[in-house]
Amino acid sequence: MARPGVRATDAKKINSELFTLTYGALVSQLLKDYENAEDVNRQLDRMGYNIGVRIIEDFLARTSTARCTDMRDTAEKIQSAFKMYLGVNPTVTSWSSASDEFSLLFDQNPMTEFVELPESCLSLKYCNLFCGIIRGACEMVQLEVTSWFVQDSLKGDPTTELRVKFVKKLEDAMPAGED
Amino acid sequence: MARPGVRATDAKKINSELFTLTYGALVSQLLKDYENAEDVNRQLDRMGYNIGVRIIEDFLARTSTARCTDMRDTAEKIQSAFKMYLGVNPTVTSWSSASDEFSLLFDQNPMTEFVELPESCLSLKYCNLFCGIIRGACEMVQLEVTSWFVQDSLKGDPTTELRVKFVKKLEDAMPAGED
Repeated sequence: MARPGVRATDAKKINSELFTLTYGALVSQLLKDYENAEDVNRQLDRMGYNIGVRIIEDFLARTSTARCTDMRDTAEKIQSAFKMYLGVNPTVTSWSSASDEFSLLFDQNPMTEFVELPESCLSLKYCNLFCGIIRGACEMVQLEVTSWFVQDSLKGDPTTELRVKFVKKLEDAMPAGED
Repeated sequence: MARPGVRATDAKKINSELFTLTYGALVSQLLKDYENAEDVNRQLDRMGYNIGVRIIEDFLARTSTARCTDMRDTAEKIQSAFKMYLGVNPTVTSWSSASDEFSLLFDQNPMTEFVELPESCLSLKYCNLFCGIIRGACEMVQLEVTSWFVQDSLKGDPTTELRVKFVKKLEDAMPAGED
């Protein structure tokens, strides 16, 4: 339904509330559609992936960013993307000793501002879309990563923590933008 | 899943692309779920309604707006809400002689920027969420309206035109914010 590429247009600055409520409608719909929360998590990740492989083009066009040199560089870029598309500034922290794995801590998260999880949804990863987006976007710049939530303030954790782990470089893939 | 009210928080300015792509994922999901486009249109309208009854509170808090005196006033408010939540500035036009019905013309619409409708979806009203939002939001300020798309540039029309029609004042309803 969507064109394969996203061309960067003039940045349209909007308030986040409409997006937040629309995302809530999407998650609610998925909860109706699928039998259990794990399937919803998987579906959110898949949708996120499809968004990530598109939005990276817009991000690269807007930021005129150069290729990431290492995961610390990647972490910074992901951080700035959250600022750009979600208006939040997660903290990059908890690096692994090999510098191949880090966490993003979200003190605030507009996506969950009006949300309370019912008891029946405690295994739902409400923001799992983010994991898919990061995975999809990184893949388009020849970087295979995995990404998952470690803590979730919606479930009573003190913060929301998203972990990103380097898997491998995708050397043989088609260079971004040359499809 | 969401709290009944939306408290106005600091406006988080974000770029619209993530929202646009997420909305595309929502519409795609609905097309998978429902048998035909008419059902998807209905569902989008219903989701929009639920969003509208919540987002109005945020809008009122942000704009410190007074009660609308007439439909021309209402049209202006709706126009400014599109600016605030979607970054677009639709033209208000085509008033009925009784001043109870008008159109919003969208020269640009970030929601449809990356979208092409497949042949099988020509009866889909891709942005029908908007109609529901307007209906829901107006209802919360004691204004019953109907709202529908007259033209849709996604279907080859020269513009996208959304019509809004006054139905009646809801005199007996609970004043907004006093539930």
